[in-house]
Amino acid sequence: MNSIEKLTRIFTEFPGIGPRQARRFVYYLLTRAEGTLDDFAKNISELKKEISVCEDCKRFYEKRSGKESICNICLDHKRERGILMVVQRDIDLESIEKNGDFKGVYFVLGGTVPILEKNPENRIRIKELESRIKNDKEIKEIILGVNWNPESENTGIFVERFLRPITEAHKIKVSHLGKGLSMGSELEYTDPETLKNALKNRN
Amino acid sequence: MNSIEKLTRIFTEFPGIGPRQARRFVYYLLTRAEGTLDDFAKNISELKKEISVCEDCKRFYEKRSGKESICNICLDHKRERGILMVVQRDIDLESIEKNGDFKGVYFVLGGTVPILEKNPENRIRIKELESRIKNDKEIKEIILGVNWNPESENTGIFVERFLRPITEAHKIKVSHLGKGLSMGSELEYTDPETLKNALKNRN
Amino acid sequence: MNSIEKLTRIFTEFPGIGPRQARRFVYYLLTRAEGTLDDFAKNISELKKEISVCEDCKRFYEKRSGKESICNICLDHKRERGILMVVQRDIDLESIEKNGDFKGVYFVLGGTVPILEKNPENRIRIKELESRIKNDKEIKEIILGVNWNPESENTGIFVERFLRPITEAHKIKVSHLGKGLSMGSELEYTDPETLKNALKNRN
Amino acid sequence: MNSIEKLTRIFTEFPGIGPRQARRFVYYLLTRAEGTLDDFAKNISELKKEISVCEDCKRFYEKRSGKESICNICLDHKRERGILMVVQRDIDLESIEKNGDFKGVYFVLGGTVPILEKNPENRIRIKELESRIKNDKEIKEIILGVNWNPESENTGIFVERFLRPITEAHKIKVSHLGKGLSMGSELEYTDPETLKNALKNRN
Repeated sequence: MNSIEKLTRIFTEFPGIGPRQARRFVYYLLTRAEGTLDDFAKNISELKKEISVCEDCKRFYEKRSGKESICNICLDHKRERGILMVVQRDIDLESIEKNGDFKGVYFVLGGTVPILEKNPENRIRIKELESRIKNDKEIKEIILGVNWNPESENTGIFVERFLRPITEAHKIKVSHLGKGLSMGSELEYTDPETLKNALKNRN
Repeated sequence: MNSIEKLTRIFTEFPGIGPRQARRFVYYLLTRAEGTLDDFAKNISELKKEISVCEDCKRFYEKRSGKESICNICLDHKRERGILMVVQRDIDLESIEKNGDFKGVYFVLGGTVPILEKNPENRIRIKELESRIKNDKEIKEIILGVNWNPESENTGIFVERFLRPITEAHKIKVSHLGKGLSMGSELEYTDPETLKNALKNRN
Repeated sequence: MNSIEKLTRIFTEFPGIGPRQARRFVYYLLTRAEGTLDDFAKNISELKKEISVCEDCKRFYEKRSGKESICNICLDHKRERGILMVVQRDIDLESIEKNGDFKGVYFVLGGTVPILEKNPENRIRIKELESRIKNDKEIKEIILGVNWNPESENTGIFVERFLRPITEAHKIKVSHLGKGLSMGSELEYTDPETLKNALKNRN
Repeated sequence: MNSIEKLTRIFTEFPGIGPRQARRFVYYLLTRAEGTLDDFAKNISELKKEISVCEDCKRFYEKRSGKESICNICLDHKRERGILMVVQRDIDLESIEKNGDFKGVYFVLGGTVPILEKNPENRIRIKELESRIKNDKEIKEIILGVNWNPESENTGIFVERFLRPITEAHKIKVSHLGKGLSMGSELEYTDPETLKNALKNRN
């Protein structure tokens, strides 16, 4: 297997990339200057050296001094530390962060709990979330910021139940993202479950 | 212009139908038996004779005795007459009705108010809605059951403002369908406006 | 079942129309004037009275005097009567006719022969095609103007074999539409079978 | 700009990749082991060291001994050296090669000539192609293996005209890939230009 094939195979494992597009990537790289490729390679091999997992929220962040272990969001004194949004993946956190409306802090579960999973504790950082809540007396509300699909809902239910002893003991409110019409929704094409929630959550 | 072309032209005005599909419809009809076409024609010419507009909710309904002027939903004593859902079109009413969760009654505006429209009163049945509310002392809540897009939102705002004198006088609550995540939503792909509402409407 | 439901069901049988769009059609009709619907109905019930099947090419055409039995294409003396294009459906004939490059005459098979069909003679007008050829000494070439998909190819093969005795006896050339790159084709995305033909049919 | 952003920006320049998917790629990489990333980086920086441009056909190929300058296709004695297929990009060559029906040799132009381009010689390897043909007395046919879209057709026309003196002098036949129905084509949806060619190239 030559370099073209080896790289094609690597790109094929990228999310959403099939063999054809993977091959196009390699030809694209072949038309770049050698220096550009060296830069690219350097960025890749240094990625995990420069990026760390935040001890508090578990998201990926760029190390500044190389010594600190907490990300800039968690360190930001202007954030409302009483509201903790629990999300499945870094990309969800980014989507909310880009929006700018959420002023609280986050916790990244790092995964999803499949339906009927026997060891959900191994799938997501539920123990770390529990100890985070135990150690942080400021938290007053936990928002379950999960997607709306069966596996994500299952993840939210598992998290809510697992945390119940501590959320009840600490009198922490657990809330869920609002469900209803999304931008662009037409009633004619809205599925029954969404419509039901739009009606229930009318305001 | 022959019959094929005349019918093609008629079908081209159907919602969502281009000239090519219109032509396919005509060829489809040509392959049917003559009796089938006569039946079809009869159904069309009788449609408006059998279907009437309900005096109360303005939706299309099938006349039973030929004398009554109120549809079966409006006549149904089990419906909560205190909750009035205002919708843009019959098809929206049907979508909600199929869902089965809404137990109140309806009013069909019969249109949409374009942004910057000078005579919105001519676009929708706002006067009829106003007099319906004036005459119906039971109404306690009006739900603006409009789609979520700029023109529909504009329609909802116009209706709300137009009715304000009477809703305030009668102490009628005006509510809006809940906005937030729709079934299948992933935070990564959710637009900022929907995300903002999902956060605001958390529960 | 009321008129709305009856018409919805009829429209659901139209090619490419699901129950939702069928329902929209009915609501669209309900918003038309009664006179418009009567016109529409009249067009439908007269469709088959005004349109006839041409005795020569079997396509649908509009009767002029009500007496003639041959369509305007077949009557046109400027067409090359020596070249006969055999197509599956009227719509294929129209597509070619709109193009304007073909100057010969047509024959509409009126269907397709499914693979493994036991009685292909019942599926298409093969007997009528055979007798057309027998009676028309002018024909020098038959173009099999079929789509390129398995069932259509099967139809073409059946027609070719069925006609072989007569085409050989009459020394009629049987040809097939050229295969190769279609407008917009990129070699990268072209399927192997098309590529193979593009190469073989290079010119 | 941190490593995540730098890499995201690099991936955004990949063909067909938007900023969102680029970001997903980076998160995907962050979840890989450090060794895997080092491997990936190594493959990238070595890509251009291991891959060379063939002196004969100009395609990218893997150097074997590090000394030879001709690719395996050009060295293969079983290929028909009399037929030269001129393609725009390496990926086109691969598509044809995967097909297996073409037994001749190739020349990769490495680009496309935009319509109204003033210096087409700078856009593609036309001088190299010319000298290849001058030096190779075996060539009897040149197939212009270009895509079917306006820029690619323009490229083919430019190549054909530029080479005319030499192809006429050497009595080299210049051919074009066949045009017509592609697999899956239905006459009803086939564009006029393709239909015209399918008719002209019937066989």
